Amino acid sequence: MTTARRDTYTPETLLSVAVRVFNERGYDGTSMEHLSKAAGISKSSIYHHVSGKEELLRRAVSRALDELFGILDEEQACTGRAVERLEYVVRRMVEVLIAELPYVTLLLRVRGNTVTERWALERRREFDRRVAELLKEAAGDGDVRADVEVRLATRLVFGMINSIVEWYRPDGRGMGAREVADAVVQLAFGGLRKAGGARG
Amino acid sequence: MTTARRDTYTPETLLSVAVRVFNERGYDGTSMEHLSKAAGISKSSIYHHVSGKEELLRRAVSRALDELFGILDEEQACTGRAVERLEYVVRRMVEVLIAELPYVTLLLRVRGNTVTERWALERRREFDRRVAELLKEAAGDGDVRADVEVRLATRLVFGMINSIVEWYRPDGRGMGAREVADAVVQLAFGGLRKAGGARG
Repeated sequence: MTTARRDTYTPETLLSVAVRVFNERGYDGTSMEHLSKAAGISKSSIYHHVSGKEELLRRAVSRALDELFGILDEEQACTGRAVERLEYVVRRMVEVLIAELPYVTLLLRVRGNTVTERWALERRREFDRRVAELLKEAAGDGDVRADVEVRLATRLVFGMINSIVEWYRPDGRGMGAREVADAVVQLAFGGLRKAGGARG
Repeated sequence: MTTARRDTYTPETLLSVAVRVFNERGYDGTSMEHLSKAAGISKSSIYHHVSGKEELLRRAVSRALDELFGILDEEQACTGRAVERLEYVVRRMVEVLIAELPYVTLLLRVRGNTVTERWALERRREFDRRVAELLKEAAGDGDVRADVEVRLATRLVFGMINSIVEWYRPDGRGMGAREVADAVVQLAFGGLRKAGGARG
């Protein structure tokens, strides 16, 4: 059944090509024909690996979701004061976003037209809820400001983090994941104003 | 030349229908046929008002850009310490974004495939530069933290603000422009951590 040509393609390399094409053309705008051309293999070879483009989407967003949910099980996300755990989670979110840039980009662009997309949106909402709970706990501890509603604060911090996919380019200006993660943590937790400066 | 039917449509109402359709289908995915159906008038009636869909796009993004650049000419954006002016500009950006939600949404989704889109991107970059200069000035005054690079901080704050178009719905949960603007200013300038709390 197998041919030399097909063997050069693993499910992993096919997935990375598919994610690139989905991000370029949009998931709705991508056909199996597009994937076949981009991968340089026949459609039947693709069907040897996966049942269709929706399976590729599911695998791709699963990779991003698994990495994101994985953060919540890491030791520093589970022990210590809620505000420290939250800060850790925010830092790791930025690191995961940059390490898995195409996968997280795809996840953030999911719209909800298919079963897989709706499932991905639900998982994203679940992740948001988990982080919002951490923020709520930190507010309960008196460690974060109480004048911003938790749900709104979560949305704004996620907005800041997620916007990174719009401009971050791995081989761009040499800015590393660490530098971006530091900046996000400093802004989200400390704000722009110099500590000790007047605050309205 | 004019008919009663055509007269019920002003360039303004046509524009608001076009913006809605552009946001729903994407600018590239919108044809004059789509606009004609959504507006309930013939294509030739549309051509009576505008030269084509690119003119509608230009008018729509111009409206958003004019409002945004207008902020920079407002008195509180021009007088006082840079950090105060910056805070004022951030607050007003949120207010403009919410007041002109469909127009700013369209502006933020522009991709650069046509002359008008490239012009809009260039204007957005110019606006970003103006705000970045204000942040640089505030850093020079010693009023904002110096440990986050200006360009990066600007991107992250804009990311936070621009993300509002993804979830804000005017008739949603009753959250007003004021509440959202307050939250953005408090987060961007003060951060999540309670003032006076320990900072790493």
